Amino acid sequence: MTPQTTLVPGNSLITDTPEAGRALAIKLARLSIKATQPDADVRDQLRPVYANDAAMLIAIGQTIALEFATIAQANNYWK
Amino acid sequence: MTPQTTLVPGNSLITDTPEAGRALAIKLARLSIKATQPDADVRDQLRPVYANDAAMLIAIGQTIALEFATIAQANNYWK
Amino acid sequence: MTPQTTLVPGNSLITDTPEAGRALAIKLARLSIKATQPDADVRDQLRPVYANDAAMLIAIGQTIALEFATIAQANNYWK
Amino acid sequence: MTPQTTLVPGNSLITDTPEAGRALAIKLARLSIKATQPDADVRDQLRPVYANDAAMLIAIGQTIALEFATIAQANNYWK
Amino acid sequence: MTPQTTLVPGNSLITDTPEAGRALAIKLARLSIKATQPDADVRDQLRPVYANDAAMLIAIGQTIALEFATIAQANNYWK
Amino acid sequence: MTPQTTLVPGNSLITDTPEAGRALAIKLARLSIKATQPDADVRDQLRPVYANDAAMLIAIGQTIALEFATIAQANNYWK
Repeated sequence: MTPQTTLVPGNSLITDTPEAGRALAIKLARLSIKATQPDADVRDQLRPVYANDAAMLIAIGQTIALEFATIAQANNYWK
Repeated sequence: MTPQTTLVPGNSLITDTPEAGRALAIKLARLSIKATQPDADVRDQLRPVYANDAAMLIAIGQTIALEFATIAQANNYWK
Repeated sequence: MTPQTTLVPGNSLITDTPEAGRALAIKLARLSIKATQPDADVRDQLRPVYANDAAMLIAIGQTIALEFATIAQANNYWK
Repeated sequence: MTPQTTLVPGNSLITDTPEAGRALAIKLARLSIKATQPDADVRDQLRPVYANDAAMLIAIGQTIALEFATIAQANNYWK
Repeated sequence: MTPQTTLVPGNSLITDTPEAGRALAIKLARLSIKATQPDADVRDQLRPVYANDAAMLIAIGQTIALEFATIAQANNYWK
Repeated sequence: MTPQTTLVPGNSLITDTPEAGRALAIKLARLSIKATQPDADVRDQLRPVYANDAAMLIAIGQTIALEFATIAQANNYWK
């Protein structure tokens, strides 16, 4: 039985494809925010703030790039 | 048949050349933004905002550098 | 007897699972803040500031990604 | 015949010296900006903005450091 | 006789434990600031500025994470 | 005869000690700024701006950490 996780979906960094690895990177980034701000209502209020702000969208892109670097290495770049 | 992808074009980090690797880095960065802000109209409105802002252009450059680091390693630096 | 630690819980980067590694990354990030601002009252006052600010939440997410990269490598990606 | 490149000069990360590697890092950083903002007139207008802004110069320095990390590794640190 | 150092305490990245490695990361980060702003009076004036600013505390946390990544690798993650 | 360099002092990443490696990291960071803003008068005017600004000093510290990561790896961490 897989233990319940709240920070790493499936409790693994291994994915079948780069596409799935990228999706995991996005999830990890989102779950970091959730761990820091557990109130769903607050997160719902913040979503339109960053989703309409170019600088914040870029910063989120940097987070995804950082998370993906780790996931890609864990998967030996799916080679 | 290659499955449809929305985050990693071609579902692979492997490219023939550094030039193609760099182009992939730019695409990955753009697809991160698209995943976070799926509304094409909003993205169209934001484009002139960051494309005319020096600080945001620099931040985008940092994202590309981060994405390229992963792609370059995946390709063993095309050596 | 494990010596008392204030910066690295358990004085180790090794964890059983990715989920535990991610939790450690979050703790390391928080303990950095604590080391820089040791006054608990000040930290309590700052918490609602960053927890309700989209840009700061994103920046915290970048820190967690950086810490996790190190922890993941220490654990050979739990492979 | 080397194909025309717009993102990686010479379509290679390999350089003879660290000095040349550093120059390549600067070029890669500039070409990222050019890819995001292809209008030379706009880039000309933005140059004095960032060249006289301490925070932006520092951010450019971070980009160069990131690009150089990849180039240095590609060249096995010129050892 | 160990030569006097101002940037790397003990002139070594090797530490006995992760906790000591983390403490070194914090020291390296502080000594970078000192090298850039050698005036102790100015640094004293700036301390309450960043110690009470959530965004700056987060940025310091990012620096510590970056420094620690290097130290952890130097110590083979204390495995 | 060593060729003249403007970006990497001594045209090498190899140093005798961590202390010397750290000093090189600081020099590389400064030479990036110089390459982007070659006018010494402008740089002189910007120095008090960033040297008295906590956020910019922190950002410079991040640059130094990034540069040092590459130099430390080039020197196999002086082990």
